[in-house]
Amino acid sequence: MKFKIHFFFLFCCLIPCSKASDVQHFLPSWNEGQTKSAIITFVEKTVDPKSKHFIATEDRIVTFDNDGTLWGEQPMYFQFFFAMDRIRELADDHPEWKDTHPYQAVIENDTQKIAQFNAEDLMHLVFSAHSQTNTNEFEQLVNTWLSTAQHPVLKKPFTQLVYQPMLELLDYLRVNHFKIFIVSGGSIEFIRAWAEQVYGIPKDRIIGSTLKTHFSYENGQTTITRLPELEFNNDHEGKALSINKFIGRKPVMSVGNSDGDLEMMQWTASGKGSRFMLYLHHTDVDREWAYDKHSNVGRLDKGLTQANNNNWTVIDMKKDWKVIFPFEL
Amino acid sequence: MKFKIHFFFLFCCLIPCSKASDVQHFLPSWNEGQTKSAIITFVEKTVDPKSKHFIATEDRIVTFDNDGTLWGEQPMYFQFFFAMDRIRELADDHPEWKDTHPYQAVIENDTQKIAQFNAEDLMHLVFSAHSQTNTNEFEQLVNTWLSTAQHPVLKKPFTQLVYQPMLELLDYLRVNHFKIFIVSGGSIEFIRAWAEQVYGIPKDRIIGSTLKTHFSYENGQTTITRLPELEFNNDHEGKALSINKFIGRKPVMSVGNSDGDLEMMQWTASGKGSRFMLYLHHTDVDREWAYDKHSNVGRLDKGLTQANNNNWTVIDMKKDWKVIFPFEL
Repeated sequence: MKFKIHFFFLFCCLIPCSKASDVQHFLPSWNEGQTKSAIITFVEKTVDPKSKHFIATEDRIVTFDNDGTLWGEQPMYFQFFFAMDRIRELADDHPEWKDTHPYQAVIENDTQKIAQFNAEDLMHLVFSAHSQTNTNEFEQLVNTWLSTAQHPVLKKPFTQLVYQPMLELLDYLRVNHFKIFIVSGGSIEFIRAWAEQVYGIPKDRIIGSTLKTHFSYENGQTTITRLPELEFNNDHEGKALSINKFIGRKPVMSVGNSDGDLEMMQWTASGKGSRFMLYLHHTDVDREWAYDKHSNVGRLDKGLTQANNNNWTVIDMKKDWKVIFPFEL
Repeated sequence: MKFKIHFFFLFCCLIPCSKASDVQHFLPSWNEGQTKSAIITFVEKTVDPKSKHFIATEDRIVTFDNDGTLWGEQPMYFQFFFAMDRIRELADDHPEWKDTHPYQAVIENDTQKIAQFNAEDLMHLVFSAHSQTNTNEFEQLVNTWLSTAQHPVLKKPFTQLVYQPMLELLDYLRVNHFKIFIVSGGSIEFIRAWAEQVYGIPKDRIIGSTLKTHFSYENGQTTITRLPELEFNNDHEGKALSINKFIGRKPVMSVGNSDGDLEMMQWTASGKGSRFMLYLHHTDVDREWAYDKHSNVGRLDKGLTQANNNNWTVIDMKKDWKVIFPFEL
């Protein structure tokens, strides 16, 4: 991954402001077809200074969802696996959890009960797992966990479960001077701990849900501590609001996979000039998962209807992607 | 300004990763002395890969306060002049304001009463002036106002009241691959409306106080509207918290001028490795203003004590700056 980013950076320095004419080079894991063509057409027409669709570099803002868009999200958001492992680690210090819902099911690894957790249960686990740590400690906790944890079904480290075609899309956009932001419903600190290295997206371009934080200065030492209270839920309309707050510009392109991304798409679509709304539809039950409007995780219902009604581009994972994960190469 | 930025960008491409050996070129409006030397020493040692003080480019985060640091703030924060002019514009639609504090004094331009406004009064004015507009409208309002409004004492457009030595410092840091962020107590949308062009700092690197916002989607149209309610006060500990939230990295250098910047300085100072905390002390009653611990605007009291106790660098405006504003050149 690192090699690729450096290579493209070099390429970009040698041929500044060029459009990438050999696009095959950039999207090798995408099958030929309408979806790949739509991406290439959008990029080529918006970076060509002679085109009426040209977009100035400062306006080339692209926002990507993370869970289910850049990496997997089944059978549950990967962040919850971290939260549950952390709860088990902390259990000795919290004897009261042994018979308290939802902690009890986690400590006993009662997969049936865990599968039935509702949003409130999951929020409780995240609050307990993420809070009462300062900024440095938390980043280390996440990275230590990532270095050993495995996906329960795919039996791979979670950071290997990123989508190869999306990595190529990130590179293709980067070389064409698009500024890429992640706008995720996941915890901002959880994603920042690993995504910079995995996707080559700097921390200040990673936006997510936040817990309230507290600053203290004592004996010359400063600490920012996370509190067990939600500050901002970066989902649905939260995504449009946070794009406005963190970026201050309307994106020209958005990429997502669920109804939670719909307001981000609407906000993007409402701008003047060329716009590109791209939904990933998980249709590959053999190589990954197939789900949409009946899924509890990453539900895609209204979003798919609106995409179809508005001629937004929808990736059919099974049809459009040659490979899903980098380790298949 | 634009020319300068392009020139430095070109320079930066031609001599990548070089330290700028002819520093005179970059800081011409700074007098020789300890302050200028301290800046140059910090930059040269942290960008030199052979130095033990070397800082990798991704960690070269610098945060600047805006009011009183990058542009003036006397006799009151410039944003309040905008707010008062906006109140006068809106007065016809709000007949109740004629005899309501603090609107009455603004409408009657009662300078004596205006000078005595407290923080709550000013907040009321900002809420009324900034809210109930959507994102596009507000940016246009600010820019229309800036194109005609003049500073009441200096009789210049406000965007000309930026500090020339600070513009040079921004350029010097940029050419050395520091990532510059504004972290201001002012309204994020107010600063973003003009600061990108004036300082060459993109909107997504401008952080400020925020009002609550509301997203709506009706008949295919999306709107984000500002509400008359404070969401986040980006001052004092708020600056450290927002740096953590928006940037996700601890700055290696911070520049400010008031006690409101102290927590940002403390947060910066607490990092490992080389750190540079730079306070601007307004000491020039002839060319600008002279004020510190007794000023209602931009009070510098605890900050100056802590700067002296910790050997932070303090700019003596009168002594260190050859010129204050670009129009003096």
